[in-house]
Amino acid sequence: MPSISQKGRNMPESPIRKLVPYAEKAEAKGKSIYYLNIGQPDIKTPEVALKAVKENNIEVLSYSRSEGSDTYRKKIADYYAYHNIKVSHTDIIVTTGASEAISFIFGSIMDPDDEVIICEPFYANYIAFATANSIKVRPIISSIEDNFALPSIAEFEKLISSRTKAIMICNPGNPTGYLYSKEEIEQLADIAKRHDLFLISDEVYREFTYDGHSHYSILELEGLDEHTIVIDSVSKRYSMCGARIGCLVTRNETIRYTVLKFAQARLSPPTYAQIASEAALSTPQSYFEDVKKEYIERRDTLISELQQIEGIKIGIPKGAFYCIVELPVKNADHFARWLLESFSIDNETVMVAPAEGFYSTKGIGTNQIRIAYVLNKQDLIKAVNIIKEALKVYKD
Amino acid sequence: MPSISQKGRNMPESPIRKLVPYAEKAEAKGKSIYYLNIGQPDIKTPEVALKAVKENNIEVLSYSRSEGSDTYRKKIADYYAYHNIKVSHTDIIVTTGASEAISFIFGSIMDPDDEVIICEPFYANYIAFATANSIKVRPIISSIEDNFALPSIAEFEKLISSRTKAIMICNPGNPTGYLYSKEEIEQLADIAKRHDLFLISDEVYREFTYDGHSHYSILELEGLDEHTIVIDSVSKRYSMCGARIGCLVTRNETIRYTVLKFAQARLSPPTYAQIASEAALSTPQSYFEDVKKEYIERRDTLISELQQIEGIKIGIPKGAFYCIVELPVKNADHFARWLLESFSIDNETVMVAPAEGFYSTKGIGTNQIRIAYVLNKQDLIKAVNIIKEALKVYKD
Repeated sequence: MPSISQKGRNMPESPIRKLVPYAEKAEAKGKSIYYLNIGQPDIKTPEVALKAVKENNIEVLSYSRSEGSDTYRKKIADYYAYHNIKVSHTDIIVTTGASEAISFIFGSIMDPDDEVIICEPFYANYIAFATANSIKVRPIISSIEDNFALPSIAEFEKLISSRTKAIMICNPGNPTGYLYSKEEIEQLADIAKRHDLFLISDEVYREFTYDGHSHYSILELEGLDEHTIVIDSVSKRYSMCGARIGCLVTRNETIRYTVLKFAQARLSPPTYAQIASEAALSTPQSYFEDVKKEYIERRDTLISELQQIEGIKIGIPKGAFYCIVELPVKNADHFARWLLESFSIDNETVMVAPAEGFYSTKGIGTNQIRIAYVLNKQDLIKAVNIIKEALKVYKD
Repeated sequence: MPSISQKGRNMPESPIRKLVPYAEKAEAKGKSIYYLNIGQPDIKTPEVALKAVKENNIEVLSYSRSEGSDTYRKKIADYYAYHNIKVSHTDIIVTTGASEAISFIFGSIMDPDDEVIICEPFYANYIAFATANSIKVRPIISSIEDNFALPSIAEFEKLISSRTKAIMICNPGNPTGYLYSKEEIEQLADIAKRHDLFLISDEVYREFTYDGHSHYSILELEGLDEHTIVIDSVSKRYSMCGARIGCLVTRNETIRYTVLKFAQARLSPPTYAQIASEAALSTPQSYFEDVKKEYIERRDTLISELQQIEGIKIGIPKGAFYCIVELPVKNADHFARWLLESFSIDNETVMVAPAEGFYSTKGIGTNQIRIAYVLNKQDLIKAVNIIKEALKVYKD
């Protein structure tokens, strides 16, 4: 039998989906599960987006433009302008989810064995896209003790070699919920400039910032237009994860020209999803205010409930809707599985994502989990209570 | 300024879209263009598919399953069963277009510098997906003189090395329209087995076979389950290019497990498009009969019109809706550009795809074009007449 590739063997399994078989078994046995493991919000998609698709009058569902339609890209540029970021619609390439934007960027700026520096814990699929492109992620550990703030620049300097092509951040962060300050972004800008590196920022959670903190985009940096590439998506902003529409934004023309060649090869982003996404940009601002209010309440509920559990540490999130929690257990992966297999209260249990998969350094984060606060407050209270009671009886 | 990757520089520009700027200029000057350059059919998408999307009742547009929904995959399995191909729905992974299926397969079976053998001319984007995966395409030239039939197996043997991981075909072929016979497929099966190679078949045009020839899928081969991987798509079958839904089918469990890791990283195929695709599978058989009849008439019209032009050679298509034509010019790329820039009849001209981009051997196919017969007969007659008259006055 012909063999698969080393790359294929190296591809990681999704840490978010790893426990799915155990959850399926638990459900088959009649258990109800609170899903805190995946960033799939329960928030309703804006009516304006759903309506646009229902009322479409397509007769031939044909290819669209590889870079996305002009009308959609102009509306995205307007969205950025509203947030004081000046970009032209030609600076934008529409992609099939932020996932595809990341792949295109990795392919456009890195050859096999080139390196990108990313603070860990980071969105687990970054490793998958790196593996698919035969490039390497060099991690810098950020710490739960200071809520996963930016590590010192000296840590970055240590890792930079001729193989280093980029520094990548997720801001606000999945899985940390950390929101980088303007000063931290400027520190990254400085190092990117000094070492002639690209600075990639995944800003898909930009709307979700709390406690009066506002988001500072790398596109606001001055004099760094050739270095900065932003990844964006409608998935979380408008609760449209199933659309699979993202984009990348860069003022660097060579990058756009190169990315466009990747984009042309796959022909076009999905047409219906673009209709929904373009319409979504007309969502009234009140929608975001409501959604943000809801997430803040959820976060506050989650944190105050978690704080009642003895022996845990919490990375307090300032944005996004994730939270890393360090548990008084040796192996959080084992605990998460045990929750599904062997624990329940009133026949209900909880699914969480073991955080180990969000680290690329082996042996780090093994006692941490990621909680996505994508359920309503009532459910969050119940779910945290299950974790609390479980920890009382769980043995490593 | 940080530099782009060698891979990014190597990514080819799409030969289908290369002349678009010239077409845009021609249109801006008021010229009408017959687009024979791109495989975008004018055939209407089945009503049942369009209706399913209009009548969807989604409230939260959430992620779907990475491998595609069970219901959709079961309907695909039924479709194959109807065509006497026995596969389980678990043998199928739904992808974002056939494009993504190709990328996932290349990544799953080949490491950088590994090789896949493909007969040229071939679908130009194969090179792009190969480049994106840092692998190499080793081409074998097939010839217009015998309508691009399978080259001798000895030619394949010559290219096989330890780096060779797969042989890939497109059947029926884009851009050739050639339909491989059962005997040719069996020859390929034999060599794949002897050298322990994967056999990949892009069968997206399987419904479009003419002159009483029927399609023979590599999935019908016996004893080759571990070797065969089929690429499929709804794009051409149901004139749903903009859906971006494809799939791969293989009975090789290790491949499916590996591809699924790539699929999970990008989360899921687009949800609306899956709704349309699943509904499309209920398209009545009469739709295909009508569409096939239309394509046969178009092909016959195209060929009989082309045959009136002196000094040309035609690769007679037995399937799909493309045709390679060798022109009495030195440089077909230059001729195609000149058609857009400097020639018209009644202010109308034609856009064709220079065939050079469908060959990876340099200097081959430079006097050939690909014609996609995706326009109605009336327009095809006018378009070929423009080419005929143009050739009378064109000077290399």
